[in-house]
Amino acid sequence: MGMNVPEALARELALANRILYDHQVVDGLGHVSLRHPDDPGLFLLSCNRAPGLVRTQDIVCYRLDGSSVDADAPRPYLERFIHGELYRARPDVHAVVHSHSMSVIPFACAGVPLRPLFHMAGFLGEGSAHFEIRESGGDTNMLISSPYLGQALARSLGQRSCVLMRGHGSTVVGASLEQAVYRAIYAEMNARLQLAAQPLGEIEFLNEAEARLSSDMNDGQIPRSWNLWVQRLGTIDLDH
Amino acid sequence: MGMNVPEALARELALANRILYDHQVVDGLGHVSLRHPDDPGLFLLSCNRAPGLVRTQDIVCYRLDGSSVDADAPRPYLERFIHGELYRARPDVHAVVHSHSMSVIPFACAGVPLRPLFHMAGFLGEGSAHFEIRESGGDTNMLISSPYLGQALARSLGQRSCVLMRGHGSTVVGASLEQAVYRAIYAEMNARLQLAAQPLGEIEFLNEAEARLSSDMNDGQIPRSWNLWVQRLGTIDLDH
Amino acid sequence: MGMNVPEALARELALANRILYDHQVVDGLGHVSLRHPDDPGLFLLSCNRAPGLVRTQDIVCYRLDGSSVDADAPRPYLERFIHGELYRARPDVHAVVHSHSMSVIPFACAGVPLRPLFHMAGFLGEGSAHFEIRESGGDTNMLISSPYLGQALARSLGQRSCVLMRGHGSTVVGASLEQAVYRAIYAEMNARLQLAAQPLGEIEFLNEAEARLSSDMNDGQIPRSWNLWVQRLGTIDLDH
Amino acid sequence: MGMNVPEALARELALANRILYDHQVVDGLGHVSLRHPDDPGLFLLSCNRAPGLVRTQDIVCYRLDGSSVDADAPRPYLERFIHGELYRARPDVHAVVHSHSMSVIPFACAGVPLRPLFHMAGFLGEGSAHFEIRESGGDTNMLISSPYLGQALARSLGQRSCVLMRGHGSTVVGASLEQAVYRAIYAEMNARLQLAAQPLGEIEFLNEAEARLSSDMNDGQIPRSWNLWVQRLGTIDLDH
Repeated sequence: MGMNVPEALARELALANRILYDHQVVDGLGHVSLRHPDDPGLFLLSCNRAPGLVRTQDIVCYRLDGSSVDADAPRPYLERFIHGELYRARPDVHAVVHSHSMSVIPFACAGVPLRPLFHMAGFLGEGSAHFEIRESGGDTNMLISSPYLGQALARSLGQRSCVLMRGHGSTVVGASLEQAVYRAIYAEMNARLQLAAQPLGEIEFLNEAEARLSSDMNDGQIPRSWNLWVQRLGTIDLDH
Repeated sequence: MGMNVPEALARELALANRILYDHQVVDGLGHVSLRHPDDPGLFLLSCNRAPGLVRTQDIVCYRLDGSSVDADAPRPYLERFIHGELYRARPDVHAVVHSHSMSVIPFACAGVPLRPLFHMAGFLGEGSAHFEIRESGGDTNMLISSPYLGQALARSLGQRSCVLMRGHGSTVVGASLEQAVYRAIYAEMNARLQLAAQPLGEIEFLNEAEARLSSDMNDGQIPRSWNLWVQRLGTIDLDH
Repeated sequence: MGMNVPEALARELALANRILYDHQVVDGLGHVSLRHPDDPGLFLLSCNRAPGLVRTQDIVCYRLDGSSVDADAPRPYLERFIHGELYRARPDVHAVVHSHSMSVIPFACAGVPLRPLFHMAGFLGEGSAHFEIRESGGDTNMLISSPYLGQALARSLGQRSCVLMRGHGSTVVGASLEQAVYRAIYAEMNARLQLAAQPLGEIEFLNEAEARLSSDMNDGQIPRSWNLWVQRLGTIDLDH
Repeated sequence: MGMNVPEALARELALANRILYDHQVVDGLGHVSLRHPDDPGLFLLSCNRAPGLVRTQDIVCYRLDGSSVDADAPRPYLERFIHGELYRARPDVHAVVHSHSMSVIPFACAGVPLRPLFHMAGFLGEGSAHFEIRESGGDTNMLISSPYLGQALARSLGQRSCVLMRGHGSTVVGASLEQAVYRAIYAEMNARLQLAAQPLGEIEFLNEAEARLSSDMNDGQIPRSWNLWVQRLGTIDLDH
């Protein structure tokens, strides 16, 4: 845990990593970040470590350009630019989850947007955005490995809450850590539902008003789920 | 545990919550209730808490209009009206499970009824009912958040045992707590089978007589499964 | 554990129950039996208890007509006639598993035979048999609840190793307990593969010679898997 | 643990077996080997034991023709020729995983190559190779049970990293043990994605350059996943 990292937030962010791993949204890869509450130009993110193993001490403070505040910080994730550039483009965003969760990727590769099948996914109301890295980066290793690519991703996301990344995975944003984690978990669930519903015939998705009303209502219920997710982890040591 | 809640029933209902969570019929959301055996105008239901965490002390006694008997009762579920109005409309019903179990939702969104593929789902004999909230509520947050919407749901259910709720989930009813829990678990299993069978060609469902005979027979076998479901939970503390 | 039940066999059979439960071939329902090694007119089977909970003391000795040798035996499974009549019809059969394993049922309901996609399922070489209970029983509760229906099932099975039962489940037979358990586990796996392969285009199944040669070879490898399956259970108490 | 088996490598290889089992790439069957670092004409592989149970002492040293260096070595896997002949044909290969992982087999049976849907599967860039045992062996028990069949498999693999074996399973190769294990795990994941994406419409796979660039980049990230995979196992005793 380096400079500019309040311990309570490091703990909360380590917990978010473990919750996402427990829900199989992340595996050895993927990451979750939190904008610094005292300085919108900074964000907190683990160093290069599997999300399922992130500890309080692994949380590092970065500037929006992806440089660490602490010069001695451990090796960073290659894709920290996802986080920095989304925070720069979207002042309303306070937490970001990037993952390769399994049911979402097929949609990213087929260019089919996620749309809300049920109220829990109301945040997908306007449909997920699509990001094609070739348009800005040509042939790449698919990673958002520079501010330039991060900015391109931010443009694709626009004002939506979820962007599918072709050949890669997806990224969701939220107004709080709890909301971003919730959205990452339910984007995966909605994708699973959307895949399963495919052969059943025409699907009636939530309309725009239903999606918005559901999303607003759900935000008040997140603490109930968060409480369960924490309990599911059992006794874990976030310090070693 | 508030007024009018017999402790043995609170324990049984807490156990039912845990069983449904263990079978992934409910997650942070969903609920199960029991009509009060001494007063058909009352029912027992947890306060606003994730089913996987419900304890004996969380069980609250409600009137059929959704108001709590105990004025000091903790925060209720937004959708307690599902339970109250189904008990009002169906004197034969003594337990209700509402859930978002994953394999059922695609059918709700495609408007395709569940039909029994195997004897364990004989209770689906006449097919599941369909509820479209737009018909009575227009654009909503999808929740059954009033007696009015609960009554509309009850009309859609009619005399059946299972109603699919478009863009939301499903609700099953039973003559006993054990039967309602059994039906919630096997509605999910039948949905999984029905999805899997889809690409194999024409399906031979149980006919009406087979469904009825199976359902009657199964009711005598529920204690065998219930016993297993309780054992699967291991040692759990329903009091803390 | 009643009359005519050698303790070592009761233990082995209880273990087989637990293995099948651990592999989700059985849940609260389903059963596995063993022909009595000293008297081909008898077989061993648990009393009416969930397979995942079967203990040594639950094993009962039955005659082929489904009556228990011990007049004081506990409540039997309704479908013990599956076992008795298959033993009667097939002297080569020494163990039987009846289950509702999830990937197999869609094939039973669509009338599509299981065919071996890989060498582990070579025992399905000639394809699975199909049983339609309506042909001999008319409208029923779908259970093999009499010697008459058991005999009809045996006729459908013929000389094959696996029979799918429409609207119900499936039954596999083996020359030994280990082989029958193996076949139940791999019938489920082959069904899962066959479902998954469906949308990929034309499937090349094992031909008859490949199926026979694979099946013969696999029989020599079963102890390796059995050893793993026992270890997976960890320390369990088969006596309480 | 026999002659020519350095203890540290035996431990590493036993660990690789457990990791593959924990990820359900292998069950009672499948195997992973390592070329001997001191002599390219030798390789290390467990004796005939379920991968999930392999201990340090089970590791045996074999020559490329499949004979064990230690004349008293325990019973070998029937298919050790897969390993010997791939090492002979591909000097760049230092580890081999053979498995029956479930999502891959449908592709092997339908003759559809795996192609990379996401960067984690960049090693599949040129598509998986296909092996039809009938072409060289006629009707067999499907096993690579001789040097002759092993050589035929090696010819089918060519310079690729993954070969699907019709009616059987698949084999991946790597420049290191960690890379081969990684490829076995992500070949399975890519197959699951490719199956799921099928009904969504046309898929945009990684192109050749993207696959190569991703694969090179991923190799530097394998330790992060390996570290997680080892931690997931918890405390295990590799010596008993």
